[in-house]
Amino acid sequence: MAESGGIDPVSDPVSDPASDPGVAGDDPGYRAAVIDLLGVISYGEITAFERLAEDAKLAPTMQDKMALASMAATELGKVAPLHQRVSELGGDPFEAMAPFGDAIDNFHRHTAPSDWLEGLVKAFVGDGLADDFYREIAAFLDPVTRDLVVSSMDEDGGHAVFVVDRVRSVIAADPTVAGRLALWGRRLMGEALTQAQRVAADRDSLTALLTGGVDRPGLDLAALGRMFTRLTERHADRMAQLGLDS
Amino acid sequence: MAESGGIDPVSDPVSDPASDPGVAGDDPGYRAAVIDLLGVISYGEITAFERLAEDAKLAPTMQDKMALASMAATELGKVAPLHQRVSELGGDPFEAMAPFGDAIDNFHRHTAPSDWLEGLVKAFVGDGLADDFYREIAAFLDPVTRDLVVSSMDEDGGHAVFVVDRVRSVIAADPTVAGRLALWGRRLMGEALTQAQRVAADRDSLTALLTGGVDRPGLDLAALGRMFTRLTERHADRMAQLGLDS
Repeated sequence: MAESGGIDPVSDPVSDPASDPGVAGDDPGYRAAVIDLLGVISYGEITAFERLAEDAKLAPTMQDKMALASMAATELGKVAPLHQRVSELGGDPFEAMAPFGDAIDNFHRHTAPSDWLEGLVKAFVGDGLADDFYREIAAFLDPVTRDLVVSSMDEDGGHAVFVVDRVRSVIAADPTVAGRLALWGRRLMGEALTQAQRVAADRDSLTALLTGGVDRPGLDLAALGRMFTRLTERHADRMAQLGLDS
Repeated sequence: MAESGGIDPVSDPVSDPASDPGVAGDDPGYRAAVIDLLGVISYGEITAFERLAEDAKLAPTMQDKMALASMAATELGKVAPLHQRVSELGGDPFEAMAPFGDAIDNFHRHTAPSDWLEGLVKAFVGDGLADDFYREIAAFLDPVTRDLVVSSMDEDGGHAVFVVDRVRSVIAADPTVAGRLALWGRRLMGEALTQAQRVAADRDSLTALLTGGVDRPGLDLAALGRMFTRLTERHADRMAQLGLDS
């Protein structure tokens, strides 16, 4: 067993991928995991584009339509740098995305908004959840990939403010919608967890990014639990921003 | 009659809006016309985004889907500077777009692609035609607006090459589709003319941009005819690039 080699994963700085920008090219297992991660994020952004462009049709005004269409274009704009990094790592961007099509398509199929408001809440809550999760994973990436992932999360162009304003003003005018939207938020969270679970079960490489390996630090079960608690708390914060119970 | 004032519109440089960057703010009739023009172009770009995002669903591969989605995002990216110019001229961007909704929506309703290939041809031929027309009008604009309109036309990000390659390769593999797509191209041209005619009849201000006014040079009927010939010729060029008769 490799563990008997006596390597201490935490105290060995050379084998910590987060401290070595070159490791992405040196460790085939890590490289495959990063290509997987960039693939799933890319596919998620492309479907976010499609879904937001579709939801824009439900917009009650041209201003709302423009806002949602701009959110769609912003998501799509994140894809090219992610694909470029996949290519730099020797992968094919479209092959990298392929394994994640079913899980992400299922998520969207099971959470198709029935109206404009549900679409807005999904845009805010769903994308926020995905971004939080990728930020958590980013801590285990080499600096180049980490900066790329984190910077792609940060470019929301003020869209969150738009969604929060719109949803809160609708609830202010008609408080009865709050109950329905709170349920909707829980359904989004539940479906996201279901599909994330499925991806984790299918892709050992991605799971290994989080749980570490013999020569790489990772999260133990307690740390995974804390990460999960953080994701849930941030979800609750977002729901509260919208004026909704979580 | 104003014509009896003896003003020679062609030889009076001060009253030529194309030579005076400030005229857009000084002449209410001209300013209204420019706001109309920026409104119709903006609305056209937003619907181009919607249509391309919709057509992306028909894409046979993820690569094709990405290409069409990127074209959609490019069109949408042209809207913000056009809206900003409307605001600078004292107009409201959304009010400026409103009068043109019916004509442009009708164009798209009457030319909904039945498959991926028709969508590609429409993206190339339809947008090309619109761009040519706006470039013709741009010659009659003040320099600031003209540069804005022309630069928004030039940003196609290599998308034309993508469409030409894809359509030609399909025709090479199955020459029988060429006849159907040639008919499709004629239908796009016919529907564009029908709706442009409708806009011209409804919006005197826009027509006046082309035909001039008592203190502003414009096209006489012969010049309008020549402009029309140029638009038709460029349409035929585009069809030929695709390997299609026009």
